[in-house]
Amino acid sequence: MTATIIDGKAIAARMRDETRAEAQALTDAGWAPRLISISVGDVAAAELYVRNQQKSAEAAGVAFEARNYAETISLEQLQGVIAGLNADPRVNGIIIQRPLPAHIPVKALQKAVHPLKDVEGMHPSSIGNIVYNDLTLGPCTAVAAVEILKTLPLKMEGLDVCVIGHSEIVGKPIAFLMMGLGATVTVCHHMTRQVAVHSRAADAVFVAVGKPGLVNGAMLKPGAALIDIGINRVNDSEGRGKTVGDADFDSCAQVAGWITPVPGGVGPVTVAILMKNAVLATRMQLEHYRAAFAAAV
Amino acid sequence: MTATIIDGKAIAARMRDETRAEAQALTDAGWAPRLISISVGDVAAAELYVRNQQKSAEAAGVAFEARNYAETISLEQLQGVIAGLNADPRVNGIIIQRPLPAHIPVKALQKAVHPLKDVEGMHPSSIGNIVYNDLTLGPCTAVAAVEILKTLPLKMEGLDVCVIGHSEIVGKPIAFLMMGLGATVTVCHHMTRQVAVHSRAADAVFVAVGKPGLVNGAMLKPGAALIDIGINRVNDSEGRGKTVGDADFDSCAQVAGWITPVPGGVGPVTVAILMKNAVLATRMQLEHYRAAFAAAV
Repeated sequence: MTATIIDGKAIAARMRDETRAEAQALTDAGWAPRLISISVGDVAAAELYVRNQQKSAEAAGVAFEARNYAETISLEQLQGVIAGLNADPRVNGIIIQRPLPAHIPVKALQKAVHPLKDVEGMHPSSIGNIVYNDLTLGPCTAVAAVEILKTLPLKMEGLDVCVIGHSEIVGKPIAFLMMGLGATVTVCHHMTRQVAVHSRAADAVFVAVGKPGLVNGAMLKPGAALIDIGINRVNDSEGRGKTVGDADFDSCAQVAGWITPVPGGVGPVTVAILMKNAVLATRMQLEHYRAAFAAAV
Repeated sequence: MTATIIDGKAIAARMRDETRAEAQALTDAGWAPRLISISVGDVAAAELYVRNQQKSAEAAGVAFEARNYAETISLEQLQGVIAGLNADPRVNGIIIQRPLPAHIPVKALQKAVHPLKDVEGMHPSSIGNIVYNDLTLGPCTAVAAVEILKTLPLKMEGLDVCVIGHSEIVGKPIAFLMMGLGATVTVCHHMTRQVAVHSRAADAVFVAVGKPGLVNGAMLKPGAALIDIGINRVNDSEGRGKTVGDADFDSCAQVAGWITPVPGGVGPVTVAILMKNAVLATRMQLEHYRAAFAAAV
């Protein structure tokens, strides 16, 4: 094996220390950061995520409240709930847990969250601000993947980057963020004729598709960085379930210079970015409040 | 010469015919589309643009009013003007002419335009909607360049596309529009190590940098489509001023399969898209109004 395995947990722990200091400073100023998590219906699928977020919030000094609504709630009722949270000064961030029931389109809820409380970075104007290189609250997974790459001793300007997967909340935002750092970015997806042509030429490869084994060592340039964002449940040869990414880890680790493991790579950093967004959102709300009350009317 | 020269004026004329029919239908419904153009200070630089827009609006059956404000107006005053236009039901679209004086940041004005009246497609949420593949009002130049490519007998899915230039309002939106059509897109810019490596591999090349001669025939794959978005004033060998694009037209036309001329390529289509956006914006405002008044309260 040639690749250095990137320690996502260590990167997340460093971020959380910074976040905790900022959360304390905000609390001292009367703005204790507080997140509300909204889930709808059967929570089993999201439960692990929510518990991880709760633990991470506690570690970062961010208050966290998980709310679950009945499967029968309507879209309009949920939009009303969110409007109430937008208007509530004690709420600094709103997280919408997926999956949602079929009658609740996730985008309609994301658009209902006030951009200053959009800690998941999913509102169209949050995404648009990435295009404008005005990053405030970015989509957590994409930001986490890019932050991991930035810890490596690679010059981002002029770096040839291949992003495999062009989802709205991961692949495309990664592409924008890397462009903003000066990289030359190619985005591949299921309609790309030969992914390997592009990935083999890249100094860094991001993969976020959700297909185990999609990227193998033959598709990488020797020494490249591989950031694996996939999270897939598979059975091993003895029928035991395990979690793997989109890369064939063993063959990729023979060729890559750096590789993120799954689990323990992008996952923990994503949760750390969510908490970083929570304190950033709180800071922005504080400034928005102060600006609004700066002068007598 | 091998390349077919793409006739932007003919494409624009076809679009304008469709727009005029839609403008007439809206007028018949009591919603005659109307644009307001805002310029500040010395208008000489923008005058030609404004006059072209005015002519194009008349041809499309869209009312057009050019307003000029004194150089001394403040940002807050202009934001107030825009707030007034947002609230005025007789105004369906707002165009902010550039350049603006140094004390007026263009983004602050673009953000002030209501997204439903953002006929230039510059608001962060308009840009974010491109990422989400929910195109409503897109940035005119980027949409024009992509619409031109779509007139060619090329299959967009899996097409290898190189975008040279990563500006917020042209290069990046083109990249995301092409991704939405299924193309594999690489975005190059001034930090890219070897643009030719990427452009030479592409089936279609968009160039939007503002440097005459940036792309030459040796940088193209034989038969590729070249969409030239640059507009540059240069002097010819006899010292006469002329307008050229970013491509070295003669050498590119020897290699490309299709090429847009400058002038007469992307430019006229861009103005046609602005008018198309104007009727689309009016249609959206009509629907928004009807939805708001659909029920007695």
